[in-house]
Amino acid sequence: MITRALVGDAYTPVNANEVAYLPQALIEIDSSGRIDRVTPAADPSYAARLKAAEVQHLVEHLPADQVIWPGFVDLHVHAPQWPQAGLALDKPLAAWLNDYTFPLEAKYDDLAFAKRVYHELVHELLSQGTTTVLFFGTIHTAANLELARQCMQQGLRAAIGRVAMDNPDQTPDYYRDASAGEAVAATERFIHQLKELGAENPLAPLPVITPRFVPSCSDEALAGLGRLAHQYDLPIQTHVSESNWEHQYAIDRFGMHDAAVLDHFGLLTEKAVLAHGTQLAPKDQALLRERGSALAHCPISNAYFGNGVLPVQELLAAGNQVGLGTDISGGYSPSLYDNLRHAVALSQVRNDGVTTQDAGTAGSRISMTTAFYLATLGGAKALHLPVGQVQAGCLADLQVVSDRFTRPAESPQDRFERLMYQTTARELRQVIVHGETVIDHAG
Amino acid sequence: MITRALVGDAYTPVNANEVAYLPQALIEIDSSGRIDRVTPAADPSYAARLKAAEVQHLVEHLPADQVIWPGFVDLHVHAPQWPQAGLALDKPLAAWLNDYTFPLEAKYDDLAFAKRVYHELVHELLSQGTTTVLFFGTIHTAANLELARQCMQQGLRAAIGRVAMDNPDQTPDYYRDASAGEAVAATERFIHQLKELGAENPLAPLPVITPRFVPSCSDEALAGLGRLAHQYDLPIQTHVSESNWEHQYAIDRFGMHDAAVLDHFGLLTEKAVLAHGTQLAPKDQALLRERGSALAHCPISNAYFGNGVLPVQELLAAGNQVGLGTDISGGYSPSLYDNLRHAVALSQVRNDGVTTQDAGTAGSRISMTTAFYLATLGGAKALHLPVGQVQAGCLADLQVVSDRFTRPAESPQDRFERLMYQTTARELRQVIVHGETVIDHAG
Repeated sequence: MITRALVGDAYTPVNANEVAYLPQALIEIDSSGRIDRVTPAADPSYAARLKAAEVQHLVEHLPADQVIWPGFVDLHVHAPQWPQAGLALDKPLAAWLNDYTFPLEAKYDDLAFAKRVYHELVHELLSQGTTTVLFFGTIHTAANLELARQCMQQGLRAAIGRVAMDNPDQTPDYYRDASAGEAVAATERFIHQLKELGAENPLAPLPVITPRFVPSCSDEALAGLGRLAHQYDLPIQTHVSESNWEHQYAIDRFGMHDAAVLDHFGLLTEKAVLAHGTQLAPKDQALLRERGSALAHCPISNAYFGNGVLPVQELLAAGNQVGLGTDISGGYSPSLYDNLRHAVALSQVRNDGVTTQDAGTAGSRISMTTAFYLATLGGAKALHLPVGQVQAGCLADLQVVSDRFTRPAESPQDRFERLMYQTTARELRQVIVHGETVIDHAG
Repeated sequence: MITRALVGDAYTPVNANEVAYLPQALIEIDSSGRIDRVTPAADPSYAARLKAAEVQHLVEHLPADQVIWPGFVDLHVHAPQWPQAGLALDKPLAAWLNDYTFPLEAKYDDLAFAKRVYHELVHELLSQGTTTVLFFGTIHTAANLELARQCMQQGLRAAIGRVAMDNPDQTPDYYRDASAGEAVAATERFIHQLKELGAENPLAPLPVITPRFVPSCSDEALAGLGRLAHQYDLPIQTHVSESNWEHQYAIDRFGMHDAAVLDHFGLLTEKAVLAHGTQLAPKDQALLRERGSALAHCPISNAYFGNGVLPVQELLAAGNQVGLGTDISGGYSPSLYDNLRHAVALSQVRNDGVTTQDAGTAGSRISMTTAFYLATLGGAKALHLPVGQVQAGCLADLQVVSDRFTRPAESPQDRFERLMYQTTARELRQVIVHGETVIDHAG
């Protein structure tokens, strides 16, 4: 049953190199939260379908200054780090972790604190146009469940991981799993509790197997988490070769590259989403392709902590799955708009080089169309969710954005690019998740 | 005479490496638009001064969630390019110029068009917290004067250049000065007309000698413009070694580097502001230091067109003058907040390198404190204007920004960094120029 219809100029990703423009499309949404049908204005059935929907008072005609595109998919958010977004980014990684991040994450054994932060964060992400998020939580089950509750209450589609971290050499004593057994058992309990909490809710967050990263985990924990992922057929999230340090750590401890370590423990599946990957060697990239594991490209965070710029264009051309992530708080911004703009600009820097002596790496540049793909369909594919497109059969997760400026002579492609460069939270009129408007600045 | 006083937590740049925090400072503004006195809460005279101002009903106590810092100084805006901000950034420079930029700039012989665009642009810049702008106009005197009118009406401090471009090899026939003589004569006429237009107005824009860049100008035009700059003791703006192409062009035509060409024609003065400079050789950087000429660092634009990342930290350490510019529309964003964040992130990329083989250039990283300096005091010094600080004697050009989040445990330095990373136009409560509130979202 159609419950709602929007009429307006829409943009939707077709693939990494193409965006489709659908002027005055009729977008019909059904009671299951899906897009039932997208009818272009030129379709012979358009007038009749529009009239039928109008008779039922289901149609919302967007003003001429508004456009529609899919909600964004954020593949990498450390929910507990939100209060420190923008802090300590000029500190060395060790200071960032030990003086800021670990003490902050440890605070989530206080459920009232967790509730306050997670309420704020979920609202913030939605108000930036993000409609699906892959979250790292903390080691605290109650706080992680509170994050899930906030997502369901405010209408954010989510997948949430209880972080596992038991290696005493790389974690502080005040914030650590007591043992490998406890890391795995607590993860398994969280899976059941989250499923119970979300029962009957269409926005029930998916549980995600979440070894923090290889350095934080013992061999036994990594192996146990790999087994859980297969047993429950769940997504996996972790970091891979994020920095020179992380890349070298795996070599020193295992005599293998970071990606190969994950593979060894059964953690490179087609449901795995690996953050960063700036230091992956070509053979590691090939291994990810072979396994169907996706990369979460976090351009802002990588500038601070990645020791390099991810070769996005090369990875996409080779067939790797890639989406986009804010990496709060390695990245300061909760906005995927900010991140897609950085993705384009940094790809250009990779292409052209940095110093006057440096010729760069030709072929590294990505277009805004590609960045849009990363923030929508690329992320959707990584999570195997039917979102990220304005298309029949997709879940109705959408953004309605206003164009503050009148540019009569512009082509649809130019308008798309300009809006991708200019849109901020201020320009969002509606954010729609599962067919429901969850952020409403339409007035 | 004190006409207005603000009380609130303020931040002000001290130098490129230091920002001062002034909790609950009393900022008294006089009838000449200047800050008469800044009294810290700890000052023995604070209570008496505050009471005296309160008795006269002059005091505005800012809410606890608001902070004050100086308005930003944008050293590089092509005003006519505003309608294409965000367009064609993935096109080669030639296509960007010939298919987009020159046809657009040529349209400003239509004064109604100019008025519409310049009204919108001046409002947009103010609403992003920018209070002083160094503008390139077009070759059209009437349109340039309209830009000046908009600045005075809306309250934006500005310096404006009538663009000179007479070289038939590098400019299109529909948008070019008829001759070198005309390029110089039209510039001189503009100087007088602008002075006349601004007579008696405290925000009268300063005229600026503006050869577009070396390739656009004949030798005779460059020489004539250099003479005008000295004759009228005026600021100069142009581009310098913006890209590999521009850098090589000067070598091919003159057998000299771009900076040396400008110097040869008397265009490297201590009042010169040179945009970009990414390809400057060390000897060019030294020449700029010797002449006291400033660089407008345009980090976003440079990512697209600069073929490199400006070594800001190295330049500041060596004693070069540097400020910040949006370079609309080589840069897509009218916000110096966006640009200062890119300045920090890109300095980090320069520091760490791009590829897995590339070790980067140690010592290139700038802090947010340095980026804040570039956007405030650095720009003020480049223009020799007493702005960019919350300090007695400075013109009262200020921003009042709200902090949407409550972070009780944060240090003042952490709060400063977080706000610099999170502030957008949405968070601006007031923009004050010359003591008057020109953007008011205080309610």
